[in-house]
Amino acid sequence: MISVGIVGGTGYTGVELLRLLLRHPQVTVRTLTSRTEAGKRVDEMFPSLRGQTSLEFSDFNIDTLKACDVVFFATPHGVAMKHAEELVSSNTKVIDLAADFRLQNLDNFEKWYGMPHACPELLKSSVYGLSELNREQIKQAQVVGNPGCYPTTVQLGLAPLLKQQNLIQEESIIIDAKSGVSGAGRKASLGMIYTENADNFKAYAVAGHRHQPEIIEALEGISGKKDVFNHLVFVPHLVPMIRGMLSTIYVDLTAEGEVTDIQKLYELFYENEKFVDVMPVGALPETRSVRGANDLRIALYKPQPKKLVIVVVQDNLVKGAAGQAVQNMNLMCGLAEDTSLTGIALSP
Amino acid sequence: MISVGIVGGTGYTGVELLRLLLRHPQVTVRTLTSRTEAGKRVDEMFPSLRGQTSLEFSDFNIDTLKACDVVFFATPHGVAMKHAEELVSSNTKVIDLAADFRLQNLDNFEKWYGMPHACPELLKSSVYGLSELNREQIKQAQVVGNPGCYPTTVQLGLAPLLKQQNLIQEESIIIDAKSGVSGAGRKASLGMIYTENADNFKAYAVAGHRHQPEIIEALEGISGKKDVFNHLVFVPHLVPMIRGMLSTIYVDLTAEGEVTDIQKLYELFYENEKFVDVMPVGALPETRSVRGANDLRIALYKPQPKKLVIVVVQDNLVKGAAGQAVQNMNLMCGLAEDTSLTGIALSP
Amino acid sequence: MISVGIVGGTGYTGVELLRLLLRHPQVTVRTLTSRTEAGKRVDEMFPSLRGQTSLEFSDFNIDTLKACDVVFFATPHGVAMKHAEELVSSNTKVIDLAADFRLQNLDNFEKWYGMPHACPELLKSSVYGLSELNREQIKQAQVVGNPGCYPTTVQLGLAPLLKQQNLIQEESIIIDAKSGVSGAGRKASLGMIYTENADNFKAYAVAGHRHQPEIIEALEGISGKKDVFNHLVFVPHLVPMIRGMLSTIYVDLTAEGEVTDIQKLYELFYENEKFVDVMPVGALPETRSVRGANDLRIALYKPQPKKLVIVVVQDNLVKGAAGQAVQNMNLMCGLAEDTSLTGIALSP
Amino acid sequence: MISVGIVGGTGYTGVELLRLLLRHPQVTVRTLTSRTEAGKRVDEMFPSLRGQTSLEFSDFNIDTLKACDVVFFATPHGVAMKHAEELVSSNTKVIDLAADFRLQNLDNFEKWYGMPHACPELLKSSVYGLSELNREQIKQAQVVGNPGCYPTTVQLGLAPLLKQQNLIQEESIIIDAKSGVSGAGRKASLGMIYTENADNFKAYAVAGHRHQPEIIEALEGISGKKDVFNHLVFVPHLVPMIRGMLSTIYVDLTAEGEVTDIQKLYELFYENEKFVDVMPVGALPETRSVRGANDLRIALYKPQPKKLVIVVVQDNLVKGAAGQAVQNMNLMCGLAEDTSLTGIALSP
Repeated sequence: MISVGIVGGTGYTGVELLRLLLRHPQVTVRTLTSRTEAGKRVDEMFPSLRGQTSLEFSDFNIDTLKACDVVFFATPHGVAMKHAEELVSSNTKVIDLAADFRLQNLDNFEKWYGMPHACPELLKSSVYGLSELNREQIKQAQVVGNPGCYPTTVQLGLAPLLKQQNLIQEESIIIDAKSGVSGAGRKASLGMIYTENADNFKAYAVAGHRHQPEIIEALEGISGKKDVFNHLVFVPHLVPMIRGMLSTIYVDLTAEGEVTDIQKLYELFYENEKFVDVMPVGALPETRSVRGANDLRIALYKPQPKKLVIVVVQDNLVKGAAGQAVQNMNLMCGLAEDTSLTGIALSP
Repeated sequence: MISVGIVGGTGYTGVELLRLLLRHPQVTVRTLTSRTEAGKRVDEMFPSLRGQTSLEFSDFNIDTLKACDVVFFATPHGVAMKHAEELVSSNTKVIDLAADFRLQNLDNFEKWYGMPHACPELLKSSVYGLSELNREQIKQAQVVGNPGCYPTTVQLGLAPLLKQQNLIQEESIIIDAKSGVSGAGRKASLGMIYTENADNFKAYAVAGHRHQPEIIEALEGISGKKDVFNHLVFVPHLVPMIRGMLSTIYVDLTAEGEVTDIQKLYELFYENEKFVDVMPVGALPETRSVRGANDLRIALYKPQPKKLVIVVVQDNLVKGAAGQAVQNMNLMCGLAEDTSLTGIALSP
Repeated sequence: MISVGIVGGTGYTGVELLRLLLRHPQVTVRTLTSRTEAGKRVDEMFPSLRGQTSLEFSDFNIDTLKACDVVFFATPHGVAMKHAEELVSSNTKVIDLAADFRLQNLDNFEKWYGMPHACPELLKSSVYGLSELNREQIKQAQVVGNPGCYPTTVQLGLAPLLKQQNLIQEESIIIDAKSGVSGAGRKASLGMIYTENADNFKAYAVAGHRHQPEIIEALEGISGKKDVFNHLVFVPHLVPMIRGMLSTIYVDLTAEGEVTDIQKLYELFYENEKFVDVMPVGALPETRSVRGANDLRIALYKPQPKKLVIVVVQDNLVKGAAGQAVQNMNLMCGLAEDTSLTGIALSP
Repeated sequence: MISVGIVGGTGYTGVELLRLLLRHPQVTVRTLTSRTEAGKRVDEMFPSLRGQTSLEFSDFNIDTLKACDVVFFATPHGVAMKHAEELVSSNTKVIDLAADFRLQNLDNFEKWYGMPHACPELLKSSVYGLSELNREQIKQAQVVGNPGCYPTTVQLGLAPLLKQQNLIQEESIIIDAKSGVSGAGRKASLGMIYTENADNFKAYAVAGHRHQPEIIEALEGISGKKDVFNHLVFVPHLVPMIRGMLSTIYVDLTAEGEVTDIQKLYELFYENEKFVDVMPVGALPETRSVRGANDLRIALYKPQPKKLVIVVVQDNLVKGAAGQAVQNMNLMCGLAEDTSLTGIALSP
């Protein structure tokens, strides 16, 4: 059995990790930390877990964590990087669900997250945990930076195009993204209360969102091209729903792209992927089709000869966060990649 | 492997049965019928099932069904009773999720469902599938009538009291019940559209609901008392949410009831039940704590010395329908009762 | 023109007062105070008011308020009672939307609101602002305590019965009440965020809610009977909707009540009321039928010969708060009672 | 008083017209027709109107309508054009809320609405009712085609740019639009039921939406340029909310556009418009800020030097339908343009 620690278990990624890990046949969750809730039973905070575990939140204890095989950080940005080196030194694998190991560019990290990076050396050897694209490196990794939710949809939505040269005009990319409210976490703030979000729709962070540099760096990595994605436009919106994320991506095709069978390109690219579903021509992906599941669905449209529209849906808390983290843990530990991730989406 | 047929797979109980049965390690879903959708892939209608099954809806074929070990009817009232005898005669077990095998009183059936019963003899030998209360009979049953969603909450909410004599005044029972919209099924009707239900709350069927005679008959069975429940008041309400049911039950205590430790009574009554959770004193059950799970939670309050308030929550599509049906199938087939039913509720 | 001040304008009752008062043809809103937002334009906080007013929040200034004809307190409990005497002394009328002037029983006030009353003498001369029941006293009042939202539904739902002797068994009253989330105000607390309330239903405050003593005191006042309502059961629930409140009230009828035409009794009682609608037999009130309007609708059912069920709906922010406050202001100032309150409910 | 007839009063635009017209000081609603509901009181279908009107639905009667000053068609496409000539001949003004008088291009009408146009001559003399852009023609019009909801946001969102030459690259326009569910009308269809739409987000009609030719024709009219908008991309999405529409519009700026003060351009363009609000730099429009109001709000962003993002919000049933129709009626009848349209948005 793999012994697991979770740091920061009071947020939505924390409880989602527990939902997946408490049913994982090769995992024991050994410790779950919370600065504020130490001593409280986790099922008292999350009644959905009543009868599933007798775990209590405990204070952060580095020795307990070092005794684990894998430690997940479901914490705010800046926590994992303070402890990762010590954990790695005792052969504990680290998966950070925050941003500490997402950006290789240290200036970008400092600019967007407001702090210098605490372990630049370890960052270099860490792996960006987009499971489908970086599978082999993840298998070898000691530290994985789990991708942001929006970047996951964009990368899997564009990868088949970018792995080819000359299909799209890279500077034309526009990402109009929509997220359910759980993407903002579990925080007591006025802007997040029910009455401010229900029956309402809005854009936010139009001036710049932290996921934009992550997207750009990732697309550069996938395509091997530098500086062509800097003019990308990314506008996130907030949807009055709990879970779910849909990104509508607009790209201009090149002459070569125009004559390429894009649908087939995607189908082939993902044909062996269990969690990526290229939907048939004409299909309309809905976020509820992945509610609670680790699936990500893609549909492709050509409303104009030179324009491609890519629609991607996922559950932001599963494939966009905790599910992909477990997928990465499975890879890092040599388990079947889909262990504990085969749950079917809740419909309706 | 147990081979299973599902009759009427286009409703919400149908797709929920599939969600549970496609992951059941000892089940193969062999056939799924629909009068209107024969030939269509089920994952075309329910994209949540993409990648999970290649089943197509097929026309109703009694011979195919007779070759199954178990047949679920997820059909409107009146369908299962037409076919149950033939299926039983070929040793196929029948679980009806509609009302055909819920009421032993034939007059009540005819009055509330508008048709005479098609197989009164078979009805007599059928078993009412409230798993926790009728477990031993269910194990032996050929035909099980799966309980209505509201009646499940009321029976499990009142059983510990009714199994004792003289704790409550039976004629005082008031049930103020609230259901998510999925309880009304998957039907194209004006009253069910989004814009008529969102941001809205209402009572309905105050003049009389089909679940009322079922509740009365069941409470008579549990308590062994006749005619004392006829004055029960049952008022259902519609909540703007997809899944979930909460029943608030009010009863007057007798002098004996007043001095009884009701909390302890319930805890003992359900101490070995995996799916019934008696919450601690002061707890407040929420429907989301059981979203997608087969759990039912109960909390008890005494706001006045002689008054008991019992709050019960469940997911109406799981413990209130498809989950309990699978629980019954497990019992009927000699499997572990919780097989494929251990999924943790989706939170948030 | 009547000059109006609003103390505490950053909550939902504050913005709702503005929605109604900025369109009131005989009112000028002269000042709007907020401890935390002084200097900020009100339409910056509430963009729905853009183009409607150039008001800014200002610091609390008693002299500015004393220069007003009417001051509304849309503040937490305990604020209005500190300033009411001074305002009244300068002939300014006071309408408190919190609880400071709701309870004549000082012990109850202290017990439920955790503070001694600051002006018991003024309290005695203040009037409880249930407009339909206390109209004549309100016309003469200097200080009005605007009723709680739940108590408004209960009083108007029971008044026709209680004004008669011997129709119901007073000790049998059970109130199963349901409120939209805006009833909890505009506060940054974890329990109020979108993801904790959407697609969810729960009971709360089963052990005791502050509106219970208010209801009991009010029913005693209406009926002229003491001590018969102490065993009343009141269970509030939270509905995933923004606005709206529905109370389902259960009462046992006396022998005289059984033979009374209750429907007619209510229709006569309210026949001249513009804002109280006794719906026809068989009707099912929905909260959305009063969304944004000052209307309250009542429907009556007799599911058993001796049992009466009364369903009452209102918009908790209008008839349950700001609308009734404006109705009271109109009465106090000798204006037509419905001035600025004739808006039709938003449907859908 | 202006006497008004409404044809097709059972949909959401019908009840919204009533909400606005029953409070209009210079209007009497004389007749309201419905093929299916003749003889039924309108407040029986829409309880929000109880106490507001005693109107009954009546059969369609051309003579009754000809006796009206203004007739609104809140009917499916294809109804108004059959009766408009006869109404105009008796000097009755016609406002169609469907598409019969939106497209001057007859081929487009036939292609997208599946029927030939019934009165091409009258169509030529009809006016497209985008109130702010065509005010003077509307004042003279006998027949007005009320714009589609999406096209209203796009035209008002782009008009200041298009009225200038050479600010944007017309072929670059991408419209990512999001609508609440009421935009689909009041119809009993499976795709519209609560459980299929709540907690869900999806794109729809990506292959082509009827509003696309309307948008193109309108933009050509505003800009005076032909054939440059044919490559416009328009992708509508469905938001789980009742009312509200938000369009995110992406355009590439020309060199001249890059150096233009776009914010000031918009502010000047709309400075005298009561219903169009150009929000300050950095503001984030939300649909709830216009819930129930005739306002439309615009915000502008430049996330990249050459890219402009325009976000537009409105209530699809008010400025996007019934409100703009009343605005047009006011213009056609020589009344103050905002009569009965000054209601403030419901917040929250």
